Amino acid sequence: MPRYKLVIEYDGTPYVGWQRQDNGPSVQGAIEAAILSLTGEIVSIRGAGRTDSGVHAMGQVAHADLTRDWKEHTLRNALNAHLGMAGERVAILDAARAPDDFDARFSAKKRHYLYRIISRKAPLALEANRAWFVAKDLDHDAMHAAGQMLVGKHDFTTFRAAQCQANSPVRTIDRLEVTRSGDLIEMRVSAQSFLHNQIRSFAGTLKLAGEGKWTAGDVRAALEARDRKACGPVAPPDGLYFMAVDY
Amino acid sequence: MPRYKLVIEYDGTPYVGWQRQDNGPSVQGAIEAAILSLTGEIVSIRGAGRTDSGVHAMGQVAHADLTRDWKEHTLRNALNAHLGMAGERVAILDAARAPDDFDARFSAKKRHYLYRIISRKAPLALEANRAWFVAKDLDHDAMHAAGQMLVGKHDFTTFRAAQCQANSPVRTIDRLEVTRSGDLIEMRVSAQSFLHNQIRSFAGTLKLAGEGKWTAGDVRAALEARDRKACGPVAPPDGLYFMAVDY
Repeated sequence: MPRYKLVIEYDGTPYVGWQRQDNGPSVQGAIEAAILSLTGEIVSIRGAGRTDSGVHAMGQVAHADLTRDWKEHTLRNALNAHLGMAGERVAILDAARAPDDFDARFSAKKRHYLYRIISRKAPLALEANRAWFVAKDLDHDAMHAAGQMLVGKHDFTTFRAAQCQANSPVRTIDRLEVTRSGDLIEMRVSAQSFLHNQIRSFAGTLKLAGEGKWTAGDVRAALEARDRKACGPVAPPDGLYFMAVDY
Repeated sequence: MPRYKLVIEYDGTPYVGWQRQDNGPSVQGAIEAAILSLTGEIVSIRGAGRTDSGVHAMGQVAHADLTRDWKEHTLRNALNAHLGMAGERVAILDAARAPDDFDARFSAKKRHYLYRIISRKAPLALEANRAWFVAKDLDHDAMHAAGQMLVGKHDFTTFRAAQCQANSPVRTIDRLEVTRSGDLIEMRVSAQSFLHNQIRSFAGTLKLAGEGKWTAGDVRAALEARDRKACGPVAPPDGLYFMAVDY
């Protein structure tokens, strides 16, 4: 069975999340349905990250085992045609043959996420559901400085959802950068893996630093507390994008 | 009656266009309804440009005469609250007192538009309805070079919709620039005023230049033909954004 690596873009707004669930449409389910209508095969695909409802992707990666040996661009185009016919907001950016031992989730060396905040007085029309609307002025330099407290290997119990299923709360954040272009503030975070809600917890906490309510020291103290209650409010899913995976 | 200048952002997808019409919801109608629910006044607003259905704006301008003397930020916030309650995809970016002789349409000295093309193999998921999806490779330098044929004062009969109501087909294009950033090709056009469908006609024609089907000389010949039939296909509204107006 040839294995394929799929690179996937989606608008997370109408989905319950990446993972197939009983309570509504999922991105995984949409792609598996497209594979079924294309090939007649019931295939279970595995994604590099289980994004929550409303979280977007420009570079989610999944692998799928198919019976037939497809030309790569034919597979990509045919899956996109079936996704389009079904009205899904999902696009296969790339389909490529992968080694049999390639695993989208377990072979991942680094994952890259982007969190977008738009800081302005007027609510979002064009960017609705595509960014976190914050009416307050934010100091992105203060956010960046406070964010450096989160870089490195730490126990991230504070920044982890109660329902997080990871065995260990220890993760290594390789990079956290906050930049600004006009009204748009972008936080880019990279790590081999993340805890559930970790990046949205970072974004909500760093927003407090951007408002001047928290110092970088407060962020460090919250981290060291290893207590979920020390976390700032979790930022909404709308601003979060799964950008890329390194293997 | 104090006059207000409103700067407006909208997602044009769900609207029949800027102008109030009998056949569906318009941006103008949405703002007039918000003014009515806020002030109890039936007000007719005038916009700087009558964008078509599906065309977006980041900086449409309109003027409105209100009975009460509103604080500017109160008016902006209250209108946005009413637009939000009505579920409109319209935001008032700014509201400012304007002189009594200010006219959003007739005082305009220059209008700025952006046309966005995404050139890649996969259909658009995140940018659906926000750009023109072109699966072919496009040479943006060739598009820019061909676009320079359209700069200056010309009879634009070729690039004008059949239903265009302007008295004269002569317009002066001050600037046409085509740039690229990854998959995204942006065409920026500025003029005091435009003919109906002029920018979408430019985009559709320059796409032919980007594909290598037309030379810059072909674009010049089309212009000189002064014949609607010489125009390339009109590009879809999805990629067009009304960006700003100079007064």
